[in-house]
Amino acid sequence: MKKFSLLFTALFTAGLLHAQDSLTIRKIYDEALLNGKAYENLHYLCKDIGPRLSGSANAQKAVEWSKKLMEGYGFDKVYLQEVMVPHWVRGAKETAFIIDGNTRIPVPIAALGMSVATPVQGITANVVEVRSLKELETLGETVIKGKIVFFNRPFDPRFIEAGEAYGNAGDQRFAGPAAAAKYGAVGVIVRSLTESIDDYPHTGATLADKDTKSIPAAAISTKAANKLSNMLRLRKLPLVKFYFKQSCQTLPDVLSYNVIGEITGTENPNKFISVGGHLDSWDLAEGAHDDGTGVMQAAEVLRLLKATGYKPKNSVRAVFFMNEENGHRGGTKYAELAAQNKEKHIAAIETDEGGFTPRGFSFDGVSADFLKNINNKYKALLEPYEVDRLVQGGSGTDIEPMKAKLPGVVLIGYRPDSQRYFDVHHSPNDVFENVNKRELQLGAAGMAALIYLIDQHGL
Amino acid sequence: MKKFSLLFTALFTAGLLHAQDSLTIRKIYDEALLNGKAYENLHYLCKDIGPRLSGSANAQKAVEWSKKLMEGYGFDKVYLQEVMVPHWVRGAKETAFIIDGNTRIPVPIAALGMSVATPVQGITANVVEVRSLKELETLGETVIKGKIVFFNRPFDPRFIEAGEAYGNAGDQRFAGPAAAAKYGAVGVIVRSLTESIDDYPHTGATLADKDTKSIPAAAISTKAANKLSNMLRLRKLPLVKFYFKQSCQTLPDVLSYNVIGEITGTENPNKFISVGGHLDSWDLAEGAHDDGTGVMQAAEVLRLLKATGYKPKNSVRAVFFMNEENGHRGGTKYAELAAQNKEKHIAAIETDEGGFTPRGFSFDGVSADFLKNINNKYKALLEPYEVDRLVQGGSGTDIEPMKAKLPGVVLIGYRPDSQRYFDVHHSPNDVFENVNKRELQLGAAGMAALIYLIDQHGL
Repeated sequence: MKKFSLLFTALFTAGLLHAQDSLTIRKIYDEALLNGKAYENLHYLCKDIGPRLSGSANAQKAVEWSKKLMEGYGFDKVYLQEVMVPHWVRGAKETAFIIDGNTRIPVPIAALGMSVATPVQGITANVVEVRSLKELETLGETVIKGKIVFFNRPFDPRFIEAGEAYGNAGDQRFAGPAAAAKYGAVGVIVRSLTESIDDYPHTGATLADKDTKSIPAAAISTKAANKLSNMLRLRKLPLVKFYFKQSCQTLPDVLSYNVIGEITGTENPNKFISVGGHLDSWDLAEGAHDDGTGVMQAAEVLRLLKATGYKPKNSVRAVFFMNEENGHRGGTKYAELAAQNKEKHIAAIETDEGGFTPRGFSFDGVSADFLKNINNKYKALLEPYEVDRLVQGGSGTDIEPMKAKLPGVVLIGYRPDSQRYFDVHHSPNDVFENVNKRELQLGAAGMAALIYLIDQHGL
Repeated sequence: MKKFSLLFTALFTAGLLHAQDSLTIRKIYDEALLNGKAYENLHYLCKDIGPRLSGSANAQKAVEWSKKLMEGYGFDKVYLQEVMVPHWVRGAKETAFIIDGNTRIPVPIAALGMSVATPVQGITANVVEVRSLKELETLGETVIKGKIVFFNRPFDPRFIEAGEAYGNAGDQRFAGPAAAAKYGAVGVIVRSLTESIDDYPHTGATLADKDTKSIPAAAISTKAANKLSNMLRLRKLPLVKFYFKQSCQTLPDVLSYNVIGEITGTENPNKFISVGGHLDSWDLAEGAHDDGTGVMQAAEVLRLLKATGYKPKNSVRAVFFMNEENGHRGGTKYAELAAQNKEKHIAAIETDEGGFTPRGFSFDGVSADFLKNINNKYKALLEPYEVDRLVQGGSGTDIEPMKAKLPGVVLIGYRPDSQRYFDVHHSPNDVFENVNKRELQLGAAGMAALIYLIDQHGL
């Protein structure tokens, strides 16, 4: 009888706890859906500030405005964290032509971030199309030397999540230009990393090799890539050449900042749960989905917790990282300082996959048992909000450095619907108009709910 | 030992079956993602045919083209099913003003489907704003008589699925005009059924009451609804009046058709699994998400099964229902004929919630045990494709009549992401450009996968 009664009490208590959690999560969602601020904040960031590449005047404006925004919400601490960032500038708009005998066909390109300029007169050369770095290696210096290498492996549509297709095609942009330079190429054109067949170049960073002189590299729109590829196939070399001109350059490093807001924990002020995205963006558009939505959601998560009257036991931070796009300096600096300051980080969530409808979270490097436990504890509570897909997987570039510096932290990636992200990613179409208010707010509420659960019941 | 070995064999066989299912589903997805036709077919339906309200010349064009499309795919049977449908026409574009003293402020309206016209000179009257049918009842004839009733209850943003918010606000449009007519109103204006705050009226059918003379009813854009509501609040009656004019009418019924394609079952030709959407659309746009995506997915489901070489044991049908929007005659006729022909229907899937990213399926009127069983059998197989949210819930208007006519059939609603649907639903923005190719194809593949599983392993 005693045993039964204890069991009953335990179940009853569990039931009550569960009920309390349900109520709190419902309150968070009601606040997000009735009084959400992330969408109007994003409007300001996109339309009144705009593109904000690291080192730019707009990036500095964004830092100052973000600090004021979070101060205005009355968080316990709001402060800047100094970090030196690269300062790459695009310069004049790029020009490019496919040269077909006497015909010059203009095509849309955009210099890859961190690329070097062409000579002022531009570069004209024959084109070698490859689909992979391996193919480049097979062709070798005899074929590549003096040519423009055209990386043209499209997204593989068979991946269910668009992010996997991006990962699968990404080496062409990250590593392709440096690899082509080794074999004596004079320039590189990379098919835009998108599933969409359109007229927009999608930029993004490329990595230099410290032992090889960099060569100019640019993204070409998928439509133009298809056209160039067809012409190469039909006309054969050397009738088709390519011309491009770009005047980008890397200026000296600039002092910039991560922007941090904090609600201090009532029980464990030196233990942290963080949520963050990156404040910098590419220069071709407004950085709406990449990653205006992420930083505006991060601030909103803290606002939601505060507005619903929740006092976290552990400190909760919103981190607006600087320089995710072309250097990762902000993320690196944050992890370094956290380690230096002996902060204990329980969990870090990164939101940098667009502001689309929430699906769930991926837990970085956790065991199958850990994941099972998380699902047992939290899936049923998140299921009514359709943010209950809790899986193993990556987290994000900005929180990645915490792995080495802050042992024990659980890194979590916020996972919204992925299908439309690369349609706009790094392109002139990454604008406010492509963000849906409810999708954005539901994401903020989902992250606030998970942080509430971790704060209450751990991982 | 014998027992162990039997168990082992059973598990081994189960494993093999599961592996075979996994392979077939992967083949279906590969075909959909590499060679999918639904998107280009939708382009034709939207751009070369366009709006196709029941009884219109375009609806007839759509019928003929759909039949040819499915014949072109070589399905075992493709045929038309006769059905008489209402023929409502909008007539000249509507005009409406808020009258504020001597000022006339033009506002965007659209006659509700099946509404009657105003007198040729239009209607001018004072406005009574209400939020519900209950409030209308409370005010009663003394307040309502001679007035224009303005139903202005917005979507409740706290619903997680937008469809629930639609359901919650929908009575204003379906039943509001007939209710207002009873109390002597001279006209009705209904806030557009959308979460979006925009300048577009969202039309949709309203239901007449056979004992009450119908009064003209129109949808007003949400922005204009907010403006009108503010003016009524600030200026008070009777300074603010409303004027509108519309010339819609209902012509005699027209002969039209459901369009049906079929792959005949190898074992049970008279047992059916169907998938369908509706071919008719509102007249304000192209009916892209509502429900061009649904019918194009239905045809694609059969094409996918055929292209992957799968020979279903039971017959599989794609049904393009006619007249979902303003009469449900096609769905009613289909169920009647199926019952008459003594067809055994195992399951019917309806896809009429837009062509967005798949989330799962809802099973209509099933028990908790039934649902648990379905989840045990199929969730793990659908999970890699993120279409594994298998829940209790509604199915759809077109298959609903099967409930009474075909006992034993399981009705299933295809459930894509709901957030953006009502932004475009029944409005001039329901155009091809708002459909994403991958989202559409993933949905077709998800439905083909479920049909494959039901065909193999039942429900």
